[in-house]
Amino acid sequence: MNDEPKLARRGRRPRDAAGGARVVNYRNLRNPFTPQRVFSDDQIQSIHETSLRVLEELGLRVLLPEARARFKQAGALVDESANMVRIGREIVERALLTPPRAFTVRGGAPERDAFFALGTLAFQPCGGPPHATDIARGRRPATIADFTDAVKLIQHYDVIHMHAANVEAQDLPIHLRHYATMRAQTLWSDKPPFVYARGNPQTMDGFAMLRIARGLTWEQFKADAWCTTVINTNSPRQIDIPMAQGLIDFALYGQPCVVTPFCLMGAMAPVTVAGALTLSHAEAMGAITLNQLANPGAPVFYGAFASNVDMKSGAPAFGTPEEVKCNIASGQLARLIGLPWRCAAATAANVNDAQAAHETEMSCWGAVLAGCSLIMHAAGWLEGGLTLSFEKFITDIDMLNTFAELCHATPATDADLAFEALKEVQPGGHFFGAAHTMERYQTAFYEPVVADWSNFGTWTERGSRDATSRAHDIYRRVVDEAKPVPLDPARVEELEAYVAKRTEEGGAPPVS
Amino acid sequence: MNDEPKLARRGRRPRDAAGGARVVNYRNLRNPFTPQRVFSDDQIQSIHETSLRVLEELGLRVLLPEARARFKQAGALVDESANMVRIGREIVERALLTPPRAFTVRGGAPERDAFFALGTLAFQPCGGPPHATDIARGRRPATIADFTDAVKLIQHYDVIHMHAANVEAQDLPIHLRHYATMRAQTLWSDKPPFVYARGNPQTMDGFAMLRIARGLTWEQFKADAWCTTVINTNSPRQIDIPMAQGLIDFALYGQPCVVTPFCLMGAMAPVTVAGALTLSHAEAMGAITLNQLANPGAPVFYGAFASNVDMKSGAPAFGTPEEVKCNIASGQLARLIGLPWRCAAATAANVNDAQAAHETEMSCWGAVLAGCSLIMHAAGWLEGGLTLSFEKFITDIDMLNTFAELCHATPATDADLAFEALKEVQPGGHFFGAAHTMERYQTAFYEPVVADWSNFGTWTERGSRDATSRAHDIYRRVVDEAKPVPLDPARVEELEAYVAKRTEEGGAPPVS
Repeated sequence: MNDEPKLARRGRRPRDAAGGARVVNYRNLRNPFTPQRVFSDDQIQSIHETSLRVLEELGLRVLLPEARARFKQAGALVDESANMVRIGREIVERALLTPPRAFTVRGGAPERDAFFALGTLAFQPCGGPPHATDIARGRRPATIADFTDAVKLIQHYDVIHMHAANVEAQDLPIHLRHYATMRAQTLWSDKPPFVYARGNPQTMDGFAMLRIARGLTWEQFKADAWCTTVINTNSPRQIDIPMAQGLIDFALYGQPCVVTPFCLMGAMAPVTVAGALTLSHAEAMGAITLNQLANPGAPVFYGAFASNVDMKSGAPAFGTPEEVKCNIASGQLARLIGLPWRCAAATAANVNDAQAAHETEMSCWGAVLAGCSLIMHAAGWLEGGLTLSFEKFITDIDMLNTFAELCHATPATDADLAFEALKEVQPGGHFFGAAHTMERYQTAFYEPVVADWSNFGTWTERGSRDATSRAHDIYRRVVDEAKPVPLDPARVEELEAYVAKRTEEGGAPPVS
Repeated sequence: MNDEPKLARRGRRPRDAAGGARVVNYRNLRNPFTPQRVFSDDQIQSIHETSLRVLEELGLRVLLPEARARFKQAGALVDESANMVRIGREIVERALLTPPRAFTVRGGAPERDAFFALGTLAFQPCGGPPHATDIARGRRPATIADFTDAVKLIQHYDVIHMHAANVEAQDLPIHLRHYATMRAQTLWSDKPPFVYARGNPQTMDGFAMLRIARGLTWEQFKADAWCTTVINTNSPRQIDIPMAQGLIDFALYGQPCVVTPFCLMGAMAPVTVAGALTLSHAEAMGAITLNQLANPGAPVFYGAFASNVDMKSGAPAFGTPEEVKCNIASGQLARLIGLPWRCAAATAANVNDAQAAHETEMSCWGAVLAGCSLIMHAAGWLEGGLTLSFEKFITDIDMLNTFAELCHATPATDADLAFEALKEVQPGGHFFGAAHTMERYQTAFYEPVVADWSNFGTWTERGSRDATSRAHDIYRRVVDEAKPVPLDPARVEELEAYVAKRTEEGGAPPVS
């Protein structure tokens, strides 16, 4: 943490006439920590070699014929009767050489661009739950209104760098749902949206709507990364039709896939950390290979999301020591590959309590210490991903802002060392009125979003409200005060016309 | 984390007839992480040099005449009219050479011994609050019953390595209180106790009772470390009478002081991280110097506990980015000195909620990544140290156990990499019944104390209980099932006789 980050600089203004509020820059963060290790370099090399053996000798089941054809053309051994693809290491090693080591996912405004490489740090919120919850309305099947509320929160907090799948808008039919989610992401936010890979027609709808919102030709769209999607393998060793199609389509249009085997040790992965990562790494390399065979040089994220299950019940567990170890070791494998990569912060708690905060923070620290470039599910994830909690979204922001603050250099000039102030204040005195303090106090410290530091008496007088209760008010205020992003009315009109036309044509059911 | 720790080895047994419960060793942990940095080596050297200037040019106010005399004898410039002591750097530098770089604080049984050096990791719980709270009885002035409950919890959890000051037993008069707290610590636990430094008579009572409980002669007692105390300076730049007396008495009896300036940036310390640490480091070095002048070679902990205040209200804040930075930078200064050192995990929350867990975990990670040897207040601390929460004590155990698990090496043999298991399980299948899983599942994963991983339906059926509610039951069970440690009845009789005699003599009021 001793070097001034090259990308992130604290944008503190000198005090101005308005009183000098603290201004910080939480965009394009650079991870300040030395990446940690769980395994020795030799052990990591063994895992890598064994993963290559898995691809070569055991193979992947790939359900999409076009994907098998691409693998076959590259020299892989394909058994069409079993949909099995065995991929020689030379094919994998060649494919791993072609993706860019660094790329920018572009937003609707230059300050929304997110730069990715090993060493950068970005956060995505909770992605994909079927439910939403808040303490006023309780837990419910999620709706497009919940999805849009999440978009507004994402837009509001600088420490959230890109959209995620947020929630499933279950009040909309699935062949039309993606129009509404793309509409919400482009009208209420200028951050890079999330586009689901649920078959070619939905993907193309997503790209088309984003191209319109950003005012781009198709050539301009393809020339840069403008969105992301998540590609989950079906562990163990399977890539299904929409995921394989996504790996191909996103590559062909130059948009980055976030390749993420989701490996729960003891369930869909071996019960050991080393075994789970051998599988996860093999699947990630196999998926990246397909992606690069479709379009060598397409931007792509390596990824890992491994944790364990409760062996008594089979229930997924998160924030465990085993997950922290998986996160850190995944970073070692990612550095071997050299690509920006994603990991996750997660919890299995059912309510936004001490367990939820503990598990989320443990796994998030694991990802940060792993040198992860993109930490997903970092705000609002509850119940192992089955619910988005709007209050947890807000309490998690204090955690993420803290990480962002830690990315900024700490001044240590002679004036900061404060010898003169130490001389000024007598033994047993205090620094409240010292000149050194007066010059700095307005911008010295992080101001939390939710934390309440008042004493017990004051806190009790104010209603003894816990963090979740306070977070609820903040969530409501941010959502209620949100405004659509300024967008050329012609683009809005074109977007609406596109949705109307595609709806009339019958929309686009997911392909599986 | 790639090296098998030399001190901590996972004591997993092979499965036995009883079903092979997981056995772990959370004692004598070795920190697995690379210590992080906030400042460059040059900046740390500047802070160190400036701290030496503070001691030499500005000096400390030292309220105990005996302490000033010892400083004077060593060559310091003493102004008796102002109680000021200016300490030349050669005195400080000489004193810093004499304490042992490694020592063991001994318990009542060999497995309770706690070894300390740079690189080891140990936890002490909440120390010193005037209040206790649990959700059944609410917040109240703490009593000796609360103190004893804390002792039972400390004894129960292996990841707590030593006693802390726990709570103030306000139901007992202060001239007799220490007899009851020493009695509780020695009858209900064989871990190293905490002895308050509140003047020579109380200190000597504490040593005497511990000597009796451990069955030692005074020579044997002095030859090893058997307890600890905390020495807080009165920042800025003052050492009061009981603290100075403690630094001398503990040194003379070979017992380690935990030297801890408590520096809140903007209040009793400069508003900058670098300035606060300049002060904290100066005070720590000054106190260690007095300690070593009294008895060169006495074991002593370096220490730091620095955070910021809310500049709007002056309220102490914890778990902030500034505290994390202070913790990490304090580790850099501790490594310069070369002594085992203490830091803290802390929160300003008023209830055991998401804020409490977040702030505690942030500061604890800061201390862990700083390479801290002794993390205090690591379980149960609430309200910035004004209350011990019994439920938070329990929820914090899951955090501490997770850190302890991370100290253990992760196996990566060929069998752990699980190629054969990956071959056995078909694509899209699962590993629940795989031989590889069956051989390992009973001991594969950490089993949490409080975390509930059941799904929302089951959790709701069970009463929708949050972590705090579940922790309450665990706290009650542990306390209710606690048993006194086996102690030679002759020693118990001698202890009781000592207390009776000293009580009859009028006890020992604190000296200040």
